[in-house]
Amino acid sequence: MNKNSSNIMALAPNTSNKRETVCIFGTGDFGRALGHKMIQSGYPVVYGSRSTQISNLIPKDAEVLSHAEAAQKAAIIIIAIQRQHYNFLIPLAEILHGKVLVDISNNLKLNQYPESNAEYLAQLLPGSRVVKAFNTVSAWALQSGTLDASRQVFVCGDDVEAKQMVMNIVRALGLTPLDKGSLLAAQEIENYPLQLFPMWKFPIFLSLGLTAFFFFYCLALDVIYTYIYEKNNFSFFIAITIPNRVCPVMALILLALVYLPGIFAAIIQLYRGTKYRRFPDWLDKWMLCRKQLGLIALAFASLHVVFTLVTPMRAFVSWRTSKGIISQALNNKTEPLNNTNAWISDSYLALGILGFFLFVLLGITSLPSVSNNVNWREFRFVQSKLGYLALILCTAHTLVYGGKWFLSPSAYKWYLPNIYILSLIVPCAVLVVKFVLIFPCVDKPLTQIRQGWERNPKHSE
Amino acid sequence: MNKNSSNIMALAPNTSNKRETVCIFGTGDFGRALGHKMIQSGYPVVYGSRSTQISNLIPKDAEVLSHAEAAQKAAIIIIAIQRQHYNFLIPLAEILHGKVLVDISNNLKLNQYPESNAEYLAQLLPGSRVVKAFNTVSAWALQSGTLDASRQVFVCGDDVEAKQMVMNIVRALGLTPLDKGSLLAAQEIENYPLQLFPMWKFPIFLSLGLTAFFFFYCLALDVIYTYIYEKNNFSFFIAITIPNRVCPVMALILLALVYLPGIFAAIIQLYRGTKYRRFPDWLDKWMLCRKQLGLIALAFASLHVVFTLVTPMRAFVSWRTSKGIISQALNNKTEPLNNTNAWISDSYLALGILGFFLFVLLGITSLPSVSNNVNWREFRFVQSKLGYLALILCTAHTLVYGGKWFLSPSAYKWYLPNIYILSLIVPCAVLVVKFVLIFPCVDKPLTQIRQGWERNPKHSE
Amino acid sequence: MNKNSSNIMALAPNTSNKRETVCIFGTGDFGRALGHKMIQSGYPVVYGSRSTQISNLIPKDAEVLSHAEAAQKAAIIIIAIQRQHYNFLIPLAEILHGKVLVDISNNLKLNQYPESNAEYLAQLLPGSRVVKAFNTVSAWALQSGTLDASRQVFVCGDDVEAKQMVMNIVRALGLTPLDKGSLLAAQEIENYPLQLFPMWKFPIFLSLGLTAFFFFYCLALDVIYTYIYEKNNFSFFIAITIPNRVCPVMALILLALVYLPGIFAAIIQLYRGTKYRRFPDWLDKWMLCRKQLGLIALAFASLHVVFTLVTPMRAFVSWRTSKGIISQALNNKTEPLNNTNAWISDSYLALGILGFFLFVLLGITSLPSVSNNVNWREFRFVQSKLGYLALILCTAHTLVYGGKWFLSPSAYKWYLPNIYILSLIVPCAVLVVKFVLIFPCVDKPLTQIRQGWERNPKHSE
Repeated sequence: MNKNSSNIMALAPNTSNKRETVCIFGTGDFGRALGHKMIQSGYPVVYGSRSTQISNLIPKDAEVLSHAEAAQKAAIIIIAIQRQHYNFLIPLAEILHGKVLVDISNNLKLNQYPESNAEYLAQLLPGSRVVKAFNTVSAWALQSGTLDASRQVFVCGDDVEAKQMVMNIVRALGLTPLDKGSLLAAQEIENYPLQLFPMWKFPIFLSLGLTAFFFFYCLALDVIYTYIYEKNNFSFFIAITIPNRVCPVMALILLALVYLPGIFAAIIQLYRGTKYRRFPDWLDKWMLCRKQLGLIALAFASLHVVFTLVTPMRAFVSWRTSKGIISQALNNKTEPLNNTNAWISDSYLALGILGFFLFVLLGITSLPSVSNNVNWREFRFVQSKLGYLALILCTAHTLVYGGKWFLSPSAYKWYLPNIYILSLIVPCAVLVVKFVLIFPCVDKPLTQIRQGWERNPKHSE
Repeated sequence: MNKNSSNIMALAPNTSNKRETVCIFGTGDFGRALGHKMIQSGYPVVYGSRSTQISNLIPKDAEVLSHAEAAQKAAIIIIAIQRQHYNFLIPLAEILHGKVLVDISNNLKLNQYPESNAEYLAQLLPGSRVVKAFNTVSAWALQSGTLDASRQVFVCGDDVEAKQMVMNIVRALGLTPLDKGSLLAAQEIENYPLQLFPMWKFPIFLSLGLTAFFFFYCLALDVIYTYIYEKNNFSFFIAITIPNRVCPVMALILLALVYLPGIFAAIIQLYRGTKYRRFPDWLDKWMLCRKQLGLIALAFASLHVVFTLVTPMRAFVSWRTSKGIISQALNNKTEPLNNTNAWISDSYLALGILGFFLFVLLGITSLPSVSNNVNWREFRFVQSKLGYLALILCTAHTLVYGGKWFLSPSAYKWYLPNIYILSLIVPCAVLVVKFVLIFPCVDKPLTQIRQGWERNPKHSE
Repeated sequence: MNKNSSNIMALAPNTSNKRETVCIFGTGDFGRALGHKMIQSGYPVVYGSRSTQISNLIPKDAEVLSHAEAAQKAAIIIIAIQRQHYNFLIPLAEILHGKVLVDISNNLKLNQYPESNAEYLAQLLPGSRVVKAFNTVSAWALQSGTLDASRQVFVCGDDVEAKQMVMNIVRALGLTPLDKGSLLAAQEIENYPLQLFPMWKFPIFLSLGLTAFFFFYCLALDVIYTYIYEKNNFSFFIAITIPNRVCPVMALILLALVYLPGIFAAIIQLYRGTKYRRFPDWLDKWMLCRKQLGLIALAFASLHVVFTLVTPMRAFVSWRTSKGIISQALNNKTEPLNNTNAWISDSYLALGILGFFLFVLLGITSLPSVSNNVNWREFRFVQSKLGYLALILCTAHTLVYGGKWFLSPSAYKWYLPNIYILSLIVPCAVLVVKFVLIFPCVDKPLTQIRQGWERNPKHSE
């Protein structure tokens, strides 16, 4: 009973007399796990196997017969064998005629075969009704009941009734079927469990590369330079000071990189005078990983916020503060409040807070369940209008914070610019070009082009 | 291949021989974009057009024929023309008889016509099977492949089979169909893409109005008053100090406004002695935007938290701290720890932290994917019990923090009460009335009324 | 019109002539509320009632007839009466033959009857087509229109066409139907609205128990001990200092408890030499509530972060800081920067920040909408790899922070170890055993066992 509540809307109680018999070809790991689960859910299960000797691995309540006998007992046959052995099914074609064959196979690498396993099976046995399902579920998860990631079972197939039968089994096992349409979707379904965040690869490698570069840049300027020329050992800067310089720089640059491809696209469209030619490949790819870039930028921004907020707790900072106060006290004087400093400090903090707030809003709206509940117009409003506002606020935050160093020669250790200056290049460029693009004389033709107008209709592709 | 992975469960490879031909009436922007995408997904596409001359804008692999010829080639016809021109389809009624017509049109404003475009089309061509679909997808998004907001395609129609055919196409294009039932839902589907956060308008305007009021109230008391009477220029308070007074006030008032309509509803039900009469309109509307009010309150509370946490980093605060310490040091005395102060400071911080923590919990449970996974009983537990607890904690936080100013005359600059006092009116009123409402002598009749009992059954509406 | 926008994709306008008539048996609260809503959505409604006298509670536009007459007018009959009275339907069996009966009933407690109400109804009236639906929606929510938690209507039934008809009504009312398969799912559907976070009970009670223990442990050592032996009244430690000791300890222990059952499972599998025997019951239950344990750990960690960040704002802390600085100033000396201290302080802060960052990532991926969008491989990568990394970082954070107290005798007040030492036991044990388990000589047989290999195939169950 208590167990039941785990798969919240899951298993019906034991009422095996009502369920139709299911046949499973193959007594491998997944076949056994699926059989176990099905018996638990009240399905009579028949295994089709070369050796009909009952192994103690096979669930107790299951029958084991030859393939032909087993197939005759059920309308649904789960093919839990590997693709290489599919051709042994050809002799059984007559028995399998009209039956629902469920292909649950996975490949070892993406696009391993020219056609998907399910389509291959359908070609071998044109009289059967092939349905692809269950490949995204792991045997271990089925058995242990911990199905957090994989409650969704993608189902596809050309026969609607067969698909319905399989989807009913999926539901009875406590999983959620998701109809993916005809068998043409099988290739995608088979590729799905092999992926490891494919869209995140480029953004993550880019971030790692840039992070490493900026880290060593800061290390050189803040720790090594100080050690060589000022004989101060600030090696502990590695823990917080340098990360807290790299994080905001990365956040700002990555956020600007989210909006840069849109700028490029607008320039290309203006230059070409048409929207009907494909963008270069690199731009297409870049545009497709903007969401990921933005989320990584948000991660860096969050780290920057926390690193900044712990500042007063650092031993170094409280030592520096004490030193300042004590030297004032010993000199018997109190510095008056510097109004300009108060303005600068308060305004870069306020700009940063507001920018981060909008940034978090953007992050929340990119959660799948939230973005599914907004329409296209609302999504564009948030991601474009609020996104640019966040970029403007964050750039202003950096400008106000780092502004005083621009002209100070002491900021150019080893003649290298300070990291703040580097971080501002991309965002400022994006904002300046965007500012130009919203001028009516540029915006009007661009809008026309985006609505389908062409400058040279003859010469377009 | 790499392109594929963007629409993760998307396009089947080129196997055009298997897909049924689709006809598109109209070679406008959306018609072309949809045709492009369909050809990419393996559908043969035929355009129906007045001029059968092949324009270079039309996808290369598509055929272009007259409307009548094109319609005969396909079972599904996508009507990518504007509603005003629908009547040109009447002469084709015979050819379109029994065909699936997909209405993809949108209007320019909400409820522009008495009946939806799809219903109008169905009236014009009673022999055809009209399905509404694709109107929530933008042409640009279809072409560029960046379909973050609009993967969901709402589909409705009176013919189940026709709907299934359209939903299969939707899936093949890498989008998610959502069956909205019969054609009666078309009006709502057509209104959907025109909305811009309709439920958020009132809460946002209310918040902006209140924020502006409190901002200028604080500006007058904290900056202008100080400048006039104490000759101190604290204009930099505009950046952090004043926002950090307005934000908590707004958060507390808006949170109380979330629970106020429930209080009103209870009083009205008690007074009327029945639950079977409608609430006044303003109360209905108010109750419907409680979630939005709560989320805006959470936004203000989050800003308050961050604004508070950056306090030690402000130049003004470190100047004030130094000044205090130096004056103590110069006077050669150390103040002893004031236990009462320590208690007050620690307890309002702790109350605020716990209140904010519950507040964030409430925010998380209002995420669509989380609230879909809780049942009605759980949702009520969180939103009502935990919500009131959050309100109590936040009110207590404000009371403990601002308590000492209540009786101090210096808090009444220009005879105006401090903003803390203003902020406590609504939440305290809500809590007091709620406290009265949970007394058994009031709670019992209210529960009875809510279970359907009526005081004067004869006189109810 | 404005009302409409609340149920965003909801009600079609009044076009009652198109909807089929629906009959409702029973004029109780839910029957009336459902009738109201259906009339609003354009369905003609007929009530079947013992007394055909029109009560003023019944919606105005509804007809009231005898049960037999009402049933004849509609193809769909909603049974809004209690299970105990179902047998009065038996005489109507002939009229109800072939009709769709919608069972909307709920029970008062979990698994109250041996079979679900819907199955009982189907047994009583074998000629009717029974569909379970609407039981998760509350009457009050239907009437007031505030349907946040319960837009989802679980539907199950053995007749596909009947289910479709009911799901169309569900959609027309602005709700989302969710097909749960055959009538066997009715029991689960009936149990669903009675649950109050069943999976959270054990984790929450465990956390409350441990929290209470650690709270009083700290109270004894930090407040009472200090009061007795040092005559210092630090009672205000109850508000922040002690919670901020308990929270990190709880977060660390609970996080370790998330990974401990996996360790046990591996040891049990290694010892038994097979994966085909069930784990002991306590281990199964433990594994099923790991997600909840992790989220509670995250809540504690978040509280710890905020409690830590407000530290500089506490009156006690600023008093202590001033005292330190003033005593240095009065002694006319400035302490030099202690490089080791700076390293320790910065590195435990940095470790804590990174650990918390990963922790939040884990929390975000456990949101239903996010975890539904990752495949099994990605989910395992995040929850296992990143989870262990978070555990390592958090343990290191605690070790670096509390390290100096391990050997200091002053940390052992009343001969009791400091709370930091207690908190490290479980996580260190988990990490050490996990470290042993990834040695090739242990990992290889374990992997084999998990792939189905057995040491003693004969003796397995």
